[in-house]
Amino acid sequence: MAMVCLSDFEAYAKKYLPKVAWDYFAAGADDCTTRDENILAYKRIRFRPRMLRDVSVVDIRTKILGSEISFPVGIAPTGFHQLAWPDGEKSTARAARAMNTCYIASTYSTRTLEEISTAAPGGLRWFQLYIHRNRAASQQLVQRAEASGFQGLVLTADLPYTGKRRDDVRNGFRLPPHMKVKNLEGAFEVCKMSLLDPSVTWNDIYWLRSLTRLPIIIKGILTREDAELAVKHGVQGIIVSNHGGRQLDEGPATIDALVEVVEAVRGRVEVYVDGGIRKGSDVLKALALGAKCVFIGRPALWGLAYKGEEGLQDVLRILQDEFRLSMALAGCASVSEIGQHLVQFSRL
Amino acid sequence: MAMVCLSDFEAYAKKYLPKVAWDYFAAGADDCTTRDENILAYKRIRFRPRMLRDVSVVDIRTKILGSEISFPVGIAPTGFHQLAWPDGEKSTARAARAMNTCYIASTYSTRTLEEISTAAPGGLRWFQLYIHRNRAASQQLVQRAEASGFQGLVLTADLPYTGKRRDDVRNGFRLPPHMKVKNLEGAFEVCKMSLLDPSVTWNDIYWLRSLTRLPIIIKGILTREDAELAVKHGVQGIIVSNHGGRQLDEGPATIDALVEVVEAVRGRVEVYVDGGIRKGSDVLKALALGAKCVFIGRPALWGLAYKGEEGLQDVLRILQDEFRLSMALAGCASVSEIGQHLVQFSRL
Amino acid sequence: MAMVCLSDFEAYAKKYLPKVAWDYFAAGADDCTTRDENILAYKRIRFRPRMLRDVSVVDIRTKILGSEISFPVGIAPTGFHQLAWPDGEKSTARAARAMNTCYIASTYSTRTLEEISTAAPGGLRWFQLYIHRNRAASQQLVQRAEASGFQGLVLTADLPYTGKRRDDVRNGFRLPPHMKVKNLEGAFEVCKMSLLDPSVTWNDIYWLRSLTRLPIIIKGILTREDAELAVKHGVQGIIVSNHGGRQLDEGPATIDALVEVVEAVRGRVEVYVDGGIRKGSDVLKALALGAKCVFIGRPALWGLAYKGEEGLQDVLRILQDEFRLSMALAGCASVSEIGQHLVQFSRL
Amino acid sequence: MAMVCLSDFEAYAKKYLPKVAWDYFAAGADDCTTRDENILAYKRIRFRPRMLRDVSVVDIRTKILGSEISFPVGIAPTGFHQLAWPDGEKSTARAARAMNTCYIASTYSTRTLEEISTAAPGGLRWFQLYIHRNRAASQQLVQRAEASGFQGLVLTADLPYTGKRRDDVRNGFRLPPHMKVKNLEGAFEVCKMSLLDPSVTWNDIYWLRSLTRLPIIIKGILTREDAELAVKHGVQGIIVSNHGGRQLDEGPATIDALVEVVEAVRGRVEVYVDGGIRKGSDVLKALALGAKCVFIGRPALWGLAYKGEEGLQDVLRILQDEFRLSMALAGCASVSEIGQHLVQFSRL
Repeated sequence: MAMVCLSDFEAYAKKYLPKVAWDYFAAGADDCTTRDENILAYKRIRFRPRMLRDVSVVDIRTKILGSEISFPVGIAPTGFHQLAWPDGEKSTARAARAMNTCYIASTYSTRTLEEISTAAPGGLRWFQLYIHRNRAASQQLVQRAEASGFQGLVLTADLPYTGKRRDDVRNGFRLPPHMKVKNLEGAFEVCKMSLLDPSVTWNDIYWLRSLTRLPIIIKGILTREDAELAVKHGVQGIIVSNHGGRQLDEGPATIDALVEVVEAVRGRVEVYVDGGIRKGSDVLKALALGAKCVFIGRPALWGLAYKGEEGLQDVLRILQDEFRLSMALAGCASVSEIGQHLVQFSRL
Repeated sequence: MAMVCLSDFEAYAKKYLPKVAWDYFAAGADDCTTRDENILAYKRIRFRPRMLRDVSVVDIRTKILGSEISFPVGIAPTGFHQLAWPDGEKSTARAARAMNTCYIASTYSTRTLEEISTAAPGGLRWFQLYIHRNRAASQQLVQRAEASGFQGLVLTADLPYTGKRRDDVRNGFRLPPHMKVKNLEGAFEVCKMSLLDPSVTWNDIYWLRSLTRLPIIIKGILTREDAELAVKHGVQGIIVSNHGGRQLDEGPATIDALVEVVEAVRGRVEVYVDGGIRKGSDVLKALALGAKCVFIGRPALWGLAYKGEEGLQDVLRILQDEFRLSMALAGCASVSEIGQHLVQFSRL
Repeated sequence: MAMVCLSDFEAYAKKYLPKVAWDYFAAGADDCTTRDENILAYKRIRFRPRMLRDVSVVDIRTKILGSEISFPVGIAPTGFHQLAWPDGEKSTARAARAMNTCYIASTYSTRTLEEISTAAPGGLRWFQLYIHRNRAASQQLVQRAEASGFQGLVLTADLPYTGKRRDDVRNGFRLPPHMKVKNLEGAFEVCKMSLLDPSVTWNDIYWLRSLTRLPIIIKGILTREDAELAVKHGVQGIIVSNHGGRQLDEGPATIDALVEVVEAVRGRVEVYVDGGIRKGSDVLKALALGAKCVFIGRPALWGLAYKGEEGLQDVLRILQDEFRLSMALAGCASVSEIGQHLVQFSRL
Repeated sequence: MAMVCLSDFEAYAKKYLPKVAWDYFAAGADDCTTRDENILAYKRIRFRPRMLRDVSVVDIRTKILGSEISFPVGIAPTGFHQLAWPDGEKSTARAARAMNTCYIASTYSTRTLEEISTAAPGGLRWFQLYIHRNRAASQQLVQRAEASGFQGLVLTADLPYTGKRRDDVRNGFRLPPHMKVKNLEGAFEVCKMSLLDPSVTWNDIYWLRSLTRLPIIIKGILTREDAELAVKHGVQGIIVSNHGGRQLDEGPATIDALVEVVEAVRGRVEVYVDGGIRKGSDVLKALALGAKCVFIGRPALWGLAYKGEEGLQDVLRILQDEFRLSMALAGCASVSEIGQHLVQFSRL
């Protein structure tokens, strides 16, 4: 079976992963409307490609928070990579480093953040954080992340409670006994997520700020109002995200929300987006609409499910090739030439 | 079979109810366009969820016409509950009381309003009324309702004649011989509904007013013009409704009409809506667009068909949990924080 | 099989007519886009129904060019009724008279106009005319129509050549040998239609005017420019029509074109519409948008195919009942109360 | 099997061509969105047909760059005609001459341009050119084309690299060993296209201009900005094209881009369009929106696959008949009467 595009990896993962694991990765909240909209919304954006520009060299490199990455696609934080591949997040870390891009490791990894660090020394990594009811536990995680060489803290803002993913409820999803949420002490029940603190507010950013010198990136912003608040509270970056459509169903597609957020931010901090990226041209659209970089969630898991580290590299390499080709065919020789003039919203 | 969301109850009811009963409950007028639009219209509304607000406590209680209910979802008036469950409306009344919400009992119940009252003393109930050609009969019903402790009168305005529901015509639908429309004297032929008075006009509200001290709620309003007339004629509440798409096909979806009615009413009376509610997030959308409370019709019947009183409680509990979760994920800690800023109409 | 709505007759005709005849009646030009759009466009129009108006009596009668008809639905001109029922147009004439409405007999009838007249004396009938290369032949038809008691002349404007109906080409459609286009002399090849004059212009209306005292109705107008020309050239009525989608594919749906034509005509002549009427509520929509009356084509043929005269009466009676009910449910007690306030175009 | 419309030829080709050849011709880039949009966009355009205009004679002839053609449909450049029919481009040339229209021969023909010329002396032909890294090779091709009687040079601007056509990658598409890209020296690998020069810019138009007296037509323009640059750099014509949706997926449909380009060009040079033409009425729409002529790609290949020269003539003749009929039914007696008033964009 030739792996030509990301859907090939999706088909592979659906076929070979245990159903419960596939369902968990694929799940969206309620009717899965937003999960699917994330993808459909890209299809409503049309390119306005320009011709006869010298694209003999196409430079796809970019920088996020000052660090160069080989192209503007990183790995979004997702949990439980061992469900996809035995080595779990260690493979993810190695693939990201090999492809010279950024990996956001999740609190809910099946490997400790120290193991992740050790697996791929020198890679660019950020650490994703939930704030727990036990603040000391969160503080400890932040300090471990900083000590292990993570270069950014990603605070997830859209999960005061876990969204209702019907298949997970039907399956009674929980981690197999031989896997552990190793960053957290003792046993942990996923379906309850009862450790998370739903009373978190914007003021807790100041508290987080007081714990670390790492840049803080906030993930899960979908409105101009919250984008304004994020800037005001001193974050260094915003990830426009709806948690892959796994939290509040029938919120906006992230590529649509990106437009609103970018407009509100007016360049004061970097803006990223995740959700629905399936082709190199999706990356080009996101950058044209103002994203500095995109992050992929499920496609990374499909890559892991295919062949671990190697499979994830395949996924990244395909996106890289497609992105470079899309840029060339749209008439862009470097990331700095990408702008809003390249796209328009379709009438349909 | 796990009952995870309302569609599970629908599937159960479709599978286990006699076809004629299922068809009667499911029926829409003509091509069933409006019946289906009631649901589809909700899907065109997108949330604008807000993050990092303290949602550690989410208060979902509200009041309708001064009475507190546990959450803003009541039971809409529908006929012939014995078709769904042997105890009929007695089970409905018990479930509504157990969940501390409002039940609007239909004139076309298979239990008398006195039986309904006795089944669940102390529950909040309104009585739904058609005006009959024999005005004395209607007057008697109003007085019985008031005497039995019903706390509101719901006048249905959209049924001068019964809509054309093709399956009912094909099935030659009528009540099985052992069931009776017990609130009315003697035999009663559903398909003719010849007892109803199609000459009713707005002035009859004054007549109704003269019969009772109960608040009058008018059900079936879809335009700003009629909303204005309703306020002018002194009703206490308006239910935006198209009778579940069973009357005039190709009228507006109720959630679309709600916007127009709320704008016209300008807070002078309470506005409710029924039709198309299938998820807790639909309730949140309706409240964001100005409804004080929503009412469910067919889902209540599915609950009854599943397990009578217990099944209906299951349905209400699922809606309650989903509504609470939606509020939290949208950043609302109490019903008073819900507003129009939470939603936008999708471009599609 | 219960005949509950017009689709039931369509299903019957499709099942029992010879394929070639069904294909001929069902045919649209090219991709059949306009044929299908005629129906879909009605579904994009939403009612704004009004409540609590006295609809104990609903008067559905109207007048066209001064003649009263029992309700605003007539029979559009279609050819070759013997393909549907042995008695052909004689049955059509009898059914129209029995239902007290107007029948527009086609030049391409399989019965002479005199036979049609004799079959149902006293019925309201108009005669549909094509202008032939042999003008004397057309003149003769006009004079025969007037002599036979037809009360209007309908000039078809949209068929300088026959549209390309792929199935007819594949089937090599032609009339069976025992049927004849009896109004015209000698043999006649449908697929060529070579007798028609493609050089006809607006000035020929004056010529037609000089031949007869009958009112002239022009059929096939779709734009405001042509509506203006029609009024200027002195016609008494306009039928907005795209020939059931059988001529130029991808023109407008007739109900959409009606809006433009009615606006241009400003009440100076009566405007009618055909194409896509399948329910009583479609009639209500057409009248709300300014039509004085609608005409049905294919549904009349389905009625004939079902049971001849009796079947066509069934079709008309169903439309009549549905139209009356729609009026009542929309709050209209007479045709004069129908207006544009009753409808709005859906966002979708 | 009757060949009634172009889809019949498509079905034939899909059935009888080797899968690899069919896939190559049918391929679109990535998800094939733009390939399919080219067709769908035509369906969103509605005619505004005019009635009662003398269409007894319909003159469908037109001129492109001063040369008369029998109707405004030419053959777009496509590669490898031997994959469809043994005689390859020689048959194409003969069919185009027989139908008196223009054939744009591709650089990637399986016959030399001299063979093409010799096969059909006197036919109107343009030569399509890519600029190669080896400029001398391109110069030689230009001079051979001019010497062989080609009357125009078509520079393809949208292929600095080949688009990603998934099926070709899966099939490992390459020419069968007995076919050659005969215009180019030595072996040639299609999937790499590594001979093309991705550094070409607008200034290279001046270089091309210096090599030949032939008019230069630029193919692949989709935006007003590039249309303006094309005029400024002195081309004689513009073909609005997205390479049949084979290059950058999710660019605009060509008929949509045509509107923007025509507006920018303001009549200074001729504008043509290719992509999505499947019916005579599509041609009429393109001309109404300002195209001087359209070009067909895949349908020409289907005609070749059906019966070589004869099959392609069948395709052209069907388009011709359909175009003439569409003109007549829209009320146009000559190409000069076609204008923007004939069309409107559908609300859907």
